[in-house]
Amino acid sequence: MVLVNGQPAQSIDVSDRGLHYGDGVFETMVVIDQHIRFLDTHLERLKKGCERLVLSMPDRDLLENEFERVKNSQSDTPFIIKFLLTRGSGGRGYAIPADSSTTRVISTHSFPDKVMQFWESGLRLHVCKQPLAINPGLAGIKHLNRLEQVLSSAERSGRPYDEGLMLSTAENVIEGTMSNIFWVKDGTYFTPDLTDCGIEGVIRSKVIDLLESMNTEVKTGNYLLEDVLKADKVFMTNSTMLVAQVMSLNDKQWLPDGELDQLRKRVAEIK
Amino acid sequence: MVLVNGQPAQSIDVSDRGLHYGDGVFETMVVIDQHIRFLDTHLERLKKGCERLVLSMPDRDLLENEFERVKNSQSDTPFIIKFLLTRGSGGRGYAIPADSSTTRVISTHSFPDKVMQFWESGLRLHVCKQPLAINPGLAGIKHLNRLEQVLSSAERSGRPYDEGLMLSTAENVIEGTMSNIFWVKDGTYFTPDLTDCGIEGVIRSKVIDLLESMNTEVKTGNYLLEDVLKADKVFMTNSTMLVAQVMSLNDKQWLPDGELDQLRKRVAEIK
Repeated sequence: MVLVNGQPAQSIDVSDRGLHYGDGVFETMVVIDQHIRFLDTHLERLKKGCERLVLSMPDRDLLENEFERVKNSQSDTPFIIKFLLTRGSGGRGYAIPADSSTTRVISTHSFPDKVMQFWESGLRLHVCKQPLAINPGLAGIKHLNRLEQVLSSAERSGRPYDEGLMLSTAENVIEGTMSNIFWVKDGTYFTPDLTDCGIEGVIRSKVIDLLESMNTEVKTGNYLLEDVLKADKVFMTNSTMLVAQVMSLNDKQWLPDGELDQLRKRVAEIK
Repeated sequence: MVLVNGQPAQSIDVSDRGLHYGDGVFETMVVIDQHIRFLDTHLERLKKGCERLVLSMPDRDLLENEFERVKNSQSDTPFIIKFLLTRGSGGRGYAIPADSSTTRVISTHSFPDKVMQFWESGLRLHVCKQPLAINPGLAGIKHLNRLEQVLSSAERSGRPYDEGLMLSTAENVIEGTMSNIFWVKDGTYFTPDLTDCGIEGVIRSKVIDLLESMNTEVKTGNYLLEDVLKADKVFMTNSTMLVAQVMSLNDKQWLPDGELDQLRKRVAEIK
């Protein structure tokens, strides 16, 4: 099911600034038993994106009402809701029209089958050739300018990898093409700082909160590929996988680690 | 008039990857007396963009036929044709679908009135706070990830500026939000190298060719804001303005220069 500005629709206006400039933000949320997981945190990131792009954040009641309608249309569990918000229709030219009003697109998608396989067998990673540009004004938020992710994901085509690790143009490790990265060395957890580039994942923040509540240190900073390669264990996080262990990164391999299954279960149990 | 894949339409599929990821390229062309100015050069850049994004370049005959149809619908002269090409509809996820086919959107727009004013009174520039990220894989081409231009153009809102000058995150001068920049110092012309970021403008390449054919040296390299501020004259280029003199950049001012009017006339006369 798809709702465009609250109406069932399969198309959007050809002049939408989401199409012309990627002028908008989105969220991908998992629904389990009619409950949107981590809705508050998704909407907080959306709000941050709206503030950064000077976009009007839709009213929470309106959004919840529309999410309720698409949830009721769906009998699967789990399934995905993708919510996309653009600056709406506009003329030719980058300047923001004075009278612009946003476009909301809410669509449902099946839960990806391969997630089960990632939980069972872990992830095979490679290092992407496509770097992430350093762009602090656009870092952290989930905006619609995603060509770097399209090109880096294309590098896996026909190759035996499940995810690609992206470095910044300064060669710092940042994130996966569709996930955030963590690793553990001598009992300390590490994850890259995302001030310069990358998306602040909802599950990334939940994992940091969970580890800190267990008095486990999580260090956030600038790290190189060699730091990841020296790790005792590595895992990726996103809304569909929650936590998935990395079994290999190029030639480096790790052994299966039961503690990461425990961590995933703890994240799954967060209310 | 708007043609979507050759059919008159006002909307595109809500799952189009142009909307979801900015996964595509575009061209903005001026039509004078039913003739698309610099069509070959626009299509060359489009082809380069398609190669970089691994997109199928549409057949030239098909495109010319569709351009002909929109031209025949328009009695104004000059007017604008915007051509937008995306990777078409796709599922959720960044990876390029194996069966993707492109979406072509051809639309007509009025020629902007303010161009006449730019020719008469010149351009008032400011330096944008929003930088251009360094991203060689996406530099040069006119792709649909244009949030940097949206945010930098928003800086002019309510302020007495006609265009913004954008620097890279390395603080090199790159281009305007909607134009390329040239300047002249002691008889030598300068324009920024666009290997790291920026769009290779069609008129930029025509101006370089024209100056070189007149045995005038054009230096391309990495330059700082102070190089522009020390220039004897400065001008911006794009498909609608061709050549427009910069009269001021923040507090710095320049006197009107008749030679730049001559240069614009020469560019306008290129067959």
